[in-house]
Amino acid sequence: MKKILTITATLLLCATSVMAQDLKAPDYASDFVGVNFTFTNIWIMLCALLVFIMGLGFALLESGLTRAKNTTNILFKNLVTPAIGVTTYALLGFNLMYPGDAWIIPNVLGFGGFGLPGIGDDASFTAAYNPGYTYLSDFLFQSMFAATAATIVSGAVAERIKLHAYLVFTLIYVAFVYPFVGSWNWGGGWLDARGFHDLAGSTLVHSVGGWGALAGAIVLGPRLGRYIGGKAKAVPGHNLTFATIGVFILWFGWWGFNGGSALSSSPKDTAWILVTTNIACVCGILGAMLTSWFVQKKPDLTMVLNGALAGLVAITAPADVVSVPAAAIIGAIAGILVVFSVLFFDKVKIDDPVGAISVHLVCGIWGTIAVGIFGEFSILTQLIGVLAYGAVCFPVAFAIFFAIKKTIGLRVSEREELRGLDLGEHGQEAYNGFQIFTNT
Amino acid sequence: MKKILTITATLLLCATSVMAQDLKAPDYASDFVGVNFTFTNIWIMLCALLVFIMGLGFALLESGLTRAKNTTNILFKNLVTPAIGVTTYALLGFNLMYPGDAWIIPNVLGFGGFGLPGIGDDASFTAAYNPGYTYLSDFLFQSMFAATAATIVSGAVAERIKLHAYLVFTLIYVAFVYPFVGSWNWGGGWLDARGFHDLAGSTLVHSVGGWGALAGAIVLGPRLGRYIGGKAKAVPGHNLTFATIGVFILWFGWWGFNGGSALSSSPKDTAWILVTTNIACVCGILGAMLTSWFVQKKPDLTMVLNGALAGLVAITAPADVVSVPAAAIIGAIAGILVVFSVLFFDKVKIDDPVGAISVHLVCGIWGTIAVGIFGEFSILTQLIGVLAYGAVCFPVAFAIFFAIKKTIGLRVSEREELRGLDLGEHGQEAYNGFQIFTNT
Amino acid sequence: MKKILTITATLLLCATSVMAQDLKAPDYASDFVGVNFTFTNIWIMLCALLVFIMGLGFALLESGLTRAKNTTNILFKNLVTPAIGVTTYALLGFNLMYPGDAWIIPNVLGFGGFGLPGIGDDASFTAAYNPGYTYLSDFLFQSMFAATAATIVSGAVAERIKLHAYLVFTLIYVAFVYPFVGSWNWGGGWLDARGFHDLAGSTLVHSVGGWGALAGAIVLGPRLGRYIGGKAKAVPGHNLTFATIGVFILWFGWWGFNGGSALSSSPKDTAWILVTTNIACVCGILGAMLTSWFVQKKPDLTMVLNGALAGLVAITAPADVVSVPAAAIIGAIAGILVVFSVLFFDKVKIDDPVGAISVHLVCGIWGTIAVGIFGEFSILTQLIGVLAYGAVCFPVAFAIFFAIKKTIGLRVSEREELRGLDLGEHGQEAYNGFQIFTNT
Repeated sequence: MKKILTITATLLLCATSVMAQDLKAPDYASDFVGVNFTFTNIWIMLCALLVFIMGLGFALLESGLTRAKNTTNILFKNLVTPAIGVTTYALLGFNLMYPGDAWIIPNVLGFGGFGLPGIGDDASFTAAYNPGYTYLSDFLFQSMFAATAATIVSGAVAERIKLHAYLVFTLIYVAFVYPFVGSWNWGGGWLDARGFHDLAGSTLVHSVGGWGALAGAIVLGPRLGRYIGGKAKAVPGHNLTFATIGVFILWFGWWGFNGGSALSSSPKDTAWILVTTNIACVCGILGAMLTSWFVQKKPDLTMVLNGALAGLVAITAPADVVSVPAAAIIGAIAGILVVFSVLFFDKVKIDDPVGAISVHLVCGIWGTIAVGIFGEFSILTQLIGVLAYGAVCFPVAFAIFFAIKKTIGLRVSEREELRGLDLGEHGQEAYNGFQIFTNT
Repeated sequence: MKKILTITATLLLCATSVMAQDLKAPDYASDFVGVNFTFTNIWIMLCALLVFIMGLGFALLESGLTRAKNTTNILFKNLVTPAIGVTTYALLGFNLMYPGDAWIIPNVLGFGGFGLPGIGDDASFTAAYNPGYTYLSDFLFQSMFAATAATIVSGAVAERIKLHAYLVFTLIYVAFVYPFVGSWNWGGGWLDARGFHDLAGSTLVHSVGGWGALAGAIVLGPRLGRYIGGKAKAVPGHNLTFATIGVFILWFGWWGFNGGSALSSSPKDTAWILVTTNIACVCGILGAMLTSWFVQKKPDLTMVLNGALAGLVAITAPADVVSVPAAAIIGAIAGILVVFSVLFFDKVKIDDPVGAISVHLVCGIWGTIAVGIFGEFSILTQLIGVLAYGAVCFPVAFAIFFAIKKTIGLRVSEREELRGLDLGEHGQEAYNGFQIFTNT
Repeated sequence: MKKILTITATLLLCATSVMAQDLKAPDYASDFVGVNFTFTNIWIMLCALLVFIMGLGFALLESGLTRAKNTTNILFKNLVTPAIGVTTYALLGFNLMYPGDAWIIPNVLGFGGFGLPGIGDDASFTAAYNPGYTYLSDFLFQSMFAATAATIVSGAVAERIKLHAYLVFTLIYVAFVYPFVGSWNWGGGWLDARGFHDLAGSTLVHSVGGWGALAGAIVLGPRLGRYIGGKAKAVPGHNLTFATIGVFILWFGWWGFNGGSALSSSPKDTAWILVTTNIACVCGILGAMLTSWFVQKKPDLTMVLNGALAGLVAITAPADVVSVPAAAIIGAIAGILVVFSVLFFDKVKIDDPVGAISVHLVCGIWGTIAVGIFGEFSILTQLIGVLAYGAVCFPVAFAIFFAIKKTIGLRVSEREELRGLDLGEHGQEAYNGFQIFTNT
């Protein structure tokens, strides 16, 4: 909490204080460069909006797949997480991830300074900054990705993590780790130089979140009563309608996540990306449905929900460099993979209430490798990228969680876990007036 | 299920294998044709996204208006239906509906081949294909319409149809019937030649879905306990908040459904269509509210929800060819009509849990005829169109449902219907931890 | 009810009867003015759509924060309110708010005639009307603001107001009061002449709604059992997930609310506005979280939800004229303010079930003054504006509520309030099949 206060205060002090004078001056385009810039800028901002609303999707998926007694806590986390993500990204994340020439360790770690220095420059609102969007639109779009990466961890650690412990982890992970490793590829670092390709973040966003989720689930341990006598006991979610709304909204937002990552309004790029994205998603649904039907005898809705997300996560890296049939195969395999992965993590007793590790880490890896299999890229380089992100993100996330555990404490008490975090952390239940059983 | 497998596999094999090379090549517009193409393409893709999210609207409307014990099943169907719709449309639907010159029976039945052959042609990403959007954007937008049509049937057959029976029907209806009859007008077939007008599908989408819904409701018969001693017993929906979210989202998506159907970014066309669409919807709400208040004594929320949709369905055909006051009248009449229609189908004991037949079929017909009444089109031609679609869709849908009934079985057992399809079909309840009464 | 009928009928008769002929004529841009007009028009329509969906946000926020037994009633009101808002705005509101030269009392009250006379003029679909959008797009965007203003009152009077009393108030307030006072600034009236600045309506929309909410809460009095023995007894909302979805959707829609209020597609204006809007929101979240944590010991989700909205309401006036750090401060202060304001209104026993007065009125005033503090505008003028709106809106709203109370009755019976308005006003419960306790 003190950290949050400090960050907020620093943001207010450090960031540029340029006034927004002259905003009302008409700026009607009068040449092709200006026209393209003006309306590509609109497209990128709309895509940022779509990525933003994915936060609601995550909130609903996570709350729907967990128990009613922890819902207030989950909603709280999912509302505050993007707030932390955007604030820290404005303060330093953007300039850690896109350091320009300000590398400290060449192509590995750079930092362009605090705040949003580019605002002061009028050229940063023209095509001189970028052919398609302003400096602030760039920040807006990228800040939503930071918020997304931060949110992925939340689901895997749900129903047992202390609120302030979660907030501290999130703050550190999104402020420092996400933009640091992100600079390796999107910021023009060493992986970019090697030809690593990850359109919208199968690795840079989803597996980064996924490694954090895996570390958190391991350090925390499973929920009480989750594995009894060596066998997994299902903890059914309290509201599958919420989970389904969540998946539809994530799918909706993904059009902006991948589509905006074209970073242009090019008709071929954008249409291609949206079609491959969509095809991978529907094939993920069908793949997971059939797999679940065969393996589990009856088709499981949560598996199909995860199948949709699996297809989307997997196509996120290769959406712009593979054919439509390849996208179908990538999505279908992701849908199959996610079912077995969820069952696998249950076998090894890593308790992930929403399947975040299977969806974001496993399918993020699969999608990144698929770039090499179906696109004209080196499989080896893609593998190196996957391993490099894992080699940094997992141990760092593990260390942060471990340090929190040893200092301020990571997990709520047994009594609080049984009664629910809503009462323990917030003194406030999400559902009132209904007969609810919390002792499950 | 086997059919789904076959279709999926075929998609992967048949469709074009063109790689997406050169996607990153900048494509900044340098002339007015290019600029118009680039940004109209964005508009059409955004409209496709809006039509996509209507799937969530349907899922929530249907689940909200039915009982808690069938919610998992309804969500499952509504997630898989668009997956089937998009997949089959990619495989063959698009080329059945828009055969170009490849008519087999002239102006009645055509087929342009499997897959998406147009991708291979670079011109298909330029204004040479269409002044406003790429081949793939066209597919994207149209595939969402296919998914919508397929979804309409779901509500009318809810709470009693076997899952795999539903999936088989959906597969056949959306893969073959919807695009076949669609070709008559939008594909340039005989109704188009006669001057039939249906902007966005009062008939081509909504009544096609509505005829399927009617056939399904008849072949299935009413839910257990729905009509006792000759009188209808109301089966109240388990969550009107979900139903209301559903209607708002459908309304939201309809801006893309009708607005995108301008197939251009023309300021006059698009603004006109959005205003008539919106006015029809609000007048549908007011019409249904007043009718319900007078007829039922107390104003019924579900009637008002259906009134909004009734107005939207009715204005879908004439949105671009009628004045704003005419749109108000069309919407208001639809809102009145839907109340009486819902009461009528209850009288004749056709059990439609969500009012899909009244909304989509009755108001779809009304909207199509309204084109002739308020627009400068032949009422006779509009009537011919309405009848032609009914003459094909109803018997075909009836035959498919009947064949399923006689082969793999259509309806779940009495015991399963009483316990709920969630346990029977999925072994998974939607709400856990709540006290729920399922034996209603 | 009779009034609604009359209005509806009048709309159908009075409004222009121009037919929409020639809509399909291609209108591809061939010059820079046309290109800018075409695509800025798309942007404004998309922003109108975003403002529209805020109606769903309000519906969910209000239903989530109140009890299950009043949900049908709340959903009903929130669906009908925008219908009344749009209908009356088409009939007369648009021309009351933007009278052009048709002032009756110069710069204070004007009226440009019934209906939408501008439709008949072909130039109203070109840049001759406005460089960025058509006459109908202008109406569409502005009509959604009217609907929003009307909706704000709903939350403060929830759980105890008679349905028809609410509808009568809404009809009068949105048809006459909102556009009348709106003309003072956006319509070019006396406050505009004085240099008052309110980008998207901290005052013109939110405080106008907020004054109505305050008047309604006072005239109605608190809910039964809300203040016992001089102390406030919390009435927890029945579903915080719905409330949270509501806030996310409002945040989503606010990008259009503020972003579209640039009334242009200018890259600098739009990007600037979206970034300040977003930063204010996240700082509102953080400010409310920390304040709630310190003041209430445990962080309260509903306070954080209100903190997000507080930041958004506050930045609505100054979003285009303040720096990014200033936006952060404005949002953070709003987040702090809203917590104390909610506690204050409880102290003085003004019962506002959703905190609408604190969010929309208090933070609307704060944001309007902030224009003078952080932007280059006169604080005095901003204060004059705030007071002028209060001086008209509060007494007028009070008088309308009071007149309704003395004539058709304002508040439901004690018995109905205890059983819930769902049964009393609609004979229809929102949740069926669940064990619900309504006697709280």
